[in-house]
Amino acid sequence: MTESSYTVTGMTCGHCAGAVREEVEALAGVAKVDVDVESGSVVVTSEAPLAVDDVRAAVEEAGYALA
Amino acid sequence: MTESSYTVTGMTCGHCAGAVREEVEALAGVAKVDVDVESGSVVVTSEAPLAVDDVRAAVEEAGYALA
Repeated sequence: MTESSYTVTGMTCGHCAGAVREEVEALAGVAKVDVDVESGSVVVTSEAPLAVDDVRAAVEEAGYALA
Repeated sequence: MTESSYTVTGMTCGHCAGAVREEVEALAGVAKVDVDVESGSVVVTSEAPLAVDDVRAAVEEAGYALA
């Protein structure tokens, strides 16, 4: 398992966190996604390293952006 | 039709507005709900005047509060 951290901007509430979590969890190989709204921290546990462009696309699909 | 205005605290984003709109729209007789996140304004159009306690309960069900 690999753990990677990202910072997402624009999240303001638990609904935002849920939207980001849902999209990132849908990426192939993702086992766990921890989102902290306050800090914008998103920690992703996956079977193999993810392409940052895939993570960025998922975050943008949810309506937010990688810092 | 009757139009009533309320102020809801705690909404921060479009998801919050959607959650409030969904719960208030579910009240009997409600025809339209306009939510403005910035101001917290919620304007409800209904067939007859609503009991404020019913509106408060719907807003709280969504996870927010009447000011």
